[in-house]
Amino acid sequence: MTRSPYLVGVDLGGTNIVVGAMPADGSAVHAVHSEPTRAHEGADAVTGRIVRLVEDVIAATCQETGATRADFMGVGIGAPGPLDRASGVVLITPNLGWTNYPLRDRVSAAVGLPAALDNDANCATLGEWWIGAARGAQHAIGLTIGTGIGGGLILNGALYHGASGIAGEIGHTSIETNGRRCNCGNYGCLEAYASGTAIATRAREALQGGETSRLAELVDGDLERITAQTVYSAAELGDTVALHVVRETARFLGAGIANLLNIFNPDVVVIAGGVTQAGDALFEPLRAEVRRRAFKPAVDVCRIVPGVLPGTAGVAGAVAAFLQQHP
Amino acid sequence: MTRSPYLVGVDLGGTNIVVGAMPADGSAVHAVHSEPTRAHEGADAVTGRIVRLVEDVIAATCQETGATRADFMGVGIGAPGPLDRASGVVLITPNLGWTNYPLRDRVSAAVGLPAALDNDANCATLGEWWIGAARGAQHAIGLTIGTGIGGGLILNGALYHGASGIAGEIGHTSIETNGRRCNCGNYGCLEAYASGTAIATRAREALQGGETSRLAELVDGDLERITAQTVYSAAELGDTVALHVVRETARFLGAGIANLLNIFNPDVVVIAGGVTQAGDALFEPLRAEVRRRAFKPAVDVCRIVPGVLPGTAGVAGAVAAFLQQHP
Repeated sequence: MTRSPYLVGVDLGGTNIVVGAMPADGSAVHAVHSEPTRAHEGADAVTGRIVRLVEDVIAATCQETGATRADFMGVGIGAPGPLDRASGVVLITPNLGWTNYPLRDRVSAAVGLPAALDNDANCATLGEWWIGAARGAQHAIGLTIGTGIGGGLILNGALYHGASGIAGEIGHTSIETNGRRCNCGNYGCLEAYASGTAIATRAREALQGGETSRLAELVDGDLERITAQTVYSAAELGDTVALHVVRETARFLGAGIANLLNIFNPDVVVIAGGVTQAGDALFEPLRAEVRRRAFKPAVDVCRIVPGVLPGTAGVAGAVAAFLQQHP
Repeated sequence: MTRSPYLVGVDLGGTNIVVGAMPADGSAVHAVHSEPTRAHEGADAVTGRIVRLVEDVIAATCQETGATRADFMGVGIGAPGPLDRASGVVLITPNLGWTNYPLRDRVSAAVGLPAALDNDANCATLGEWWIGAARGAQHAIGLTIGTGIGGGLILNGALYHGASGIAGEIGHTSIETNGRRCNCGNYGCLEAYASGTAIATRAREALQGGETSRLAELVDGDLERITAQTVYSAAELGDTVALHVVRETARFLGAGIANLLNIFNPDVVVIAGGVTQAGDALFEPLRAEVRRRAFKPAVDVCRIVPGVLPGTAGVAGAVAAFLQQHP
């Protein structure tokens, strides 16, 4: 029997590094290891940490599956962008403080395996498409809602990168021409209304306006401690203010996603990140808003679903990005 | 010497049918013939008119180039959608009043040549990409601004159609979540602000508000006669009200196009239709608005240009659609 080759996926975030191994057929994720990024220690220290995690994951996978090191064919890396895929260089990452850092080749040289680099939001979408909620789709759009809103586009069964590799910035499409100023400099971006940060801000504003809510209890009265996470937790408890914020978020997201349906006519839109914990309280009004706005033939063929790989979409996507770059 | 094969392109609009012939290398457009559509006479009468025009164009092209009928290999047809490319059926066309009409096969049978059908907005974009302003681009977005706003997407060098063939409805992306109601049922669509119809409406509103303008002269004081065309003519004459309407249009379009740059990161955006007659009065503020809103790496690689094939983009695109469907 031929043994399946294995790959390692690295999901490098501003807070944590997550690494795992997968067989090339995507049938499992082995030995997921995670550590804080500690970006302030500098690029070389972070790279050293990545390399050690990769070695740990390879060793643990060999023990778990009976594979040997020779079965490992490469390392895929998802990193915050913008970056240059062709050269494997991270160009600028405000979250990590790096400029023009040749991450791919540093990891490759240290591990002794070929490596590939792609944007983290692209990898999250690619993971859900390869083995998750968007599996089997020809055209899939992914949104990852965290501090900001990241996006990825799978068109005709492959990641779409655009002319200079920055395609998919769905969080930075304006849904209000003269709306809230966004960190990116534009006005009325989806991210300025529906990111985790925006959700926490809108909840704080409601409480400062005098509404009573279990949110206040959850943060012991210190409104500055309200995060998107707190809002989802309060919504799960049935809190009216939190449910209203989730509902507003759903309507903003619905307007943005309706635009994507009319532009792309996709098979599926996958929404990942903490916001999916709000469950039906988010997805029901969101789907209703999309139906209200988008063309029926586009609505009829499109599923709008939560991601099913919390924690491992980035790892699986980094592996899939390696496979797409080394077909 | 091998003789170049020829193709016929048909651009079927609600007002006119335009037909022309081209060699397969796209080097020329021959014998462009045009006639009113007269849709009220019914689908079979219109098809008869298309078939006669195709025969006239073939005969005229043979006379002009020395080609013979045997050199013609097919007919491409661009028609208002939605339509089903695979079966060649026009599903519903409010402008023509047709339902489930097998246009492609009717034309093919009558002419005795294979035929292909695609959406008119897709064909207009494809024509500009094949032999016009977007020539050589990997990723091109086309907007055709007339009564409405049509859109077409060329991604990785091919038309992108989406899961059910309706992709590219750029006119129906909302730039104001709670904005003007659009004919499509959505709110704040680009079409509701920047189409020819919207341009005429905004000019009329300005005059009804008491502003003086040469626009009033151009329509002999009958404001109902103001069209987008009148606004462009007055703007060319330096009229302040008309120039203001064009400038506002540029800002709305700029917001919509900035969204497209952040999503697609294209090489080029081509804007076609009467609005391009406004020239720099439109394109300068439009480009400035896009620069103000979109990510710099996307702005830096993207040209925003007027179409260069007024009148023949649809014909050339129909020919190119035939070639893409019969590679």
